[in-house]
Amino acid sequence: MTHTLILLRHGNSDWNQKNLFTGWVDVRLSDQGVGEAKRAGELLAESGVLPDVLYTSVLSRAIQTANLALDTADRLWIPVKRSWRLNERHYGALQGKDKAQTLAEYGPEQFQTWRRSFDVPPPPIADDNEFSQINDVRYAGIDGAIPATECLKDVIDRMIPYWESDITKDLAAGKTVLVTAHGNSLRALVKHLDGISDDDIAELNIPTGIPLVYKLDENFRPLGPAEYLDPEAAAAGAAAVAAQGNKK
Amino acid sequence: MTHTLILLRHGNSDWNQKNLFTGWVDVRLSDQGVGEAKRAGELLAESGVLPDVLYTSVLSRAIQTANLALDTADRLWIPVKRSWRLNERHYGALQGKDKAQTLAEYGPEQFQTWRRSFDVPPPPIADDNEFSQINDVRYAGIDGAIPATECLKDVIDRMIPYWESDITKDLAAGKTVLVTAHGNSLRALVKHLDGISDDDIAELNIPTGIPLVYKLDENFRPLGPAEYLDPEAAAAGAAAVAAQGNKK
Repeated sequence: MTHTLILLRHGNSDWNQKNLFTGWVDVRLSDQGVGEAKRAGELLAESGVLPDVLYTSVLSRAIQTANLALDTADRLWIPVKRSWRLNERHYGALQGKDKAQTLAEYGPEQFQTWRRSFDVPPPPIADDNEFSQINDVRYAGIDGAIPATECLKDVIDRMIPYWESDITKDLAAGKTVLVTAHGNSLRALVKHLDGISDDDIAELNIPTGIPLVYKLDENFRPLGPAEYLDPEAAAAGAAAVAAQGNKK
Repeated sequence: MTHTLILLRHGNSDWNQKNLFTGWVDVRLSDQGVGEAKRAGELLAESGVLPDVLYTSVLSRAIQTANLALDTADRLWIPVKRSWRLNERHYGALQGKDKAQTLAEYGPEQFQTWRRSFDVPPPPIADDNEFSQINDVRYAGIDGAIPATECLKDVIDRMIPYWESDITKDLAAGKTVLVTAHGNSLRALVKHLDGISDDDIAELNIPTGIPLVYKLDENFRPLGPAEYLDPEAAAAGAAAVAAQGNKK
């Protein structure tokens, strides 16, 4: 049995627009992001790769993206499951900071370590920092402590168990699954699926708003390379993500 | 322990606008309906009656209403559960027909029977009618047959078991529950909660887009009359619903 998995990174947000580190801060889609989300829905409808069930993080920008894409693809009615385990990487004390300013202040080596190191997290955020989520009611019931910072390895450690316990169950039941999430939670899943090394994952950039379709075997291993529903736009989008932080 | 239940009827739809019988036909909100849904979200935010979990039908106009209201109230992240058991009443062969034309054709007595009789359904819709849902993929897995018509009694028979099996479970767990649904599925629930007789329920009209808040005791019986978050707008809205069909 072949399983179909669709990954969708949320569209451009207000803070992408402002070039700020976001992480768990609950910002909204920009107008550009709204357009990207609708375009993602058109791509789903045109390709006929239609999800039977939706997974999202608990961050508004991913939920908005899913709602707009499904509205456009006429699939608003599918079941929805949300989990903090699909959230963006917690960016620690960098949350709310300007990327270009951080680059200028700390230099390219430290900057790139914080952005792309596999196992070195940024400094933890203080509980009284205005961009901490320590008192956010949506995390009141989470199983485990609310993180104060995360590296990609931490994201893998909280994300992959959920993939195995929940998402693969729906795939096993023959459902086409859409996961609408974030740059780093999706990188964590792609690393797992494609067997990318801890070093090589640093180079992988996932563009916003373009559905990425995996065909998986009965053990949930890829039957071939995943395919973007709009390959040209995806290549341009990945290059734009890679260039982040160099923005003036 | 006091439980909080919020009922919200979807905003004005394209077919409300056109004065057509809708039922299970999956029409979208009109621009007016979009405004009503956002206003509902403002009322939730202003009143501080904030849902912890959302229930919707599988019809787009209810889902759109919930998404817009929760977006406005900054509660997009709450868990969502959908069921066909919260759908609007199936209007049988009347689906897609003009209300004023139906009134003129069949006379006020028959018209009112179809709209408000407790236990007389309209004629069943034919499987090959363009407004039948017999081949709609969203109902592929429903437990039971897809109805070809329903009276209010039929709606109660499919809706109240779901109230008891699922919705009250979340209330019992201390959660504030939002149910975003339809004129007749909400009338079914209000009849059950308020102990309204089979005759008197004909006179009850629920306005669109205005949250109705119940406080319930440990047996899920109302502690007092339910309250609309905007009582003046609710009274005007209920009068407008009652006048439907007389529209030229």
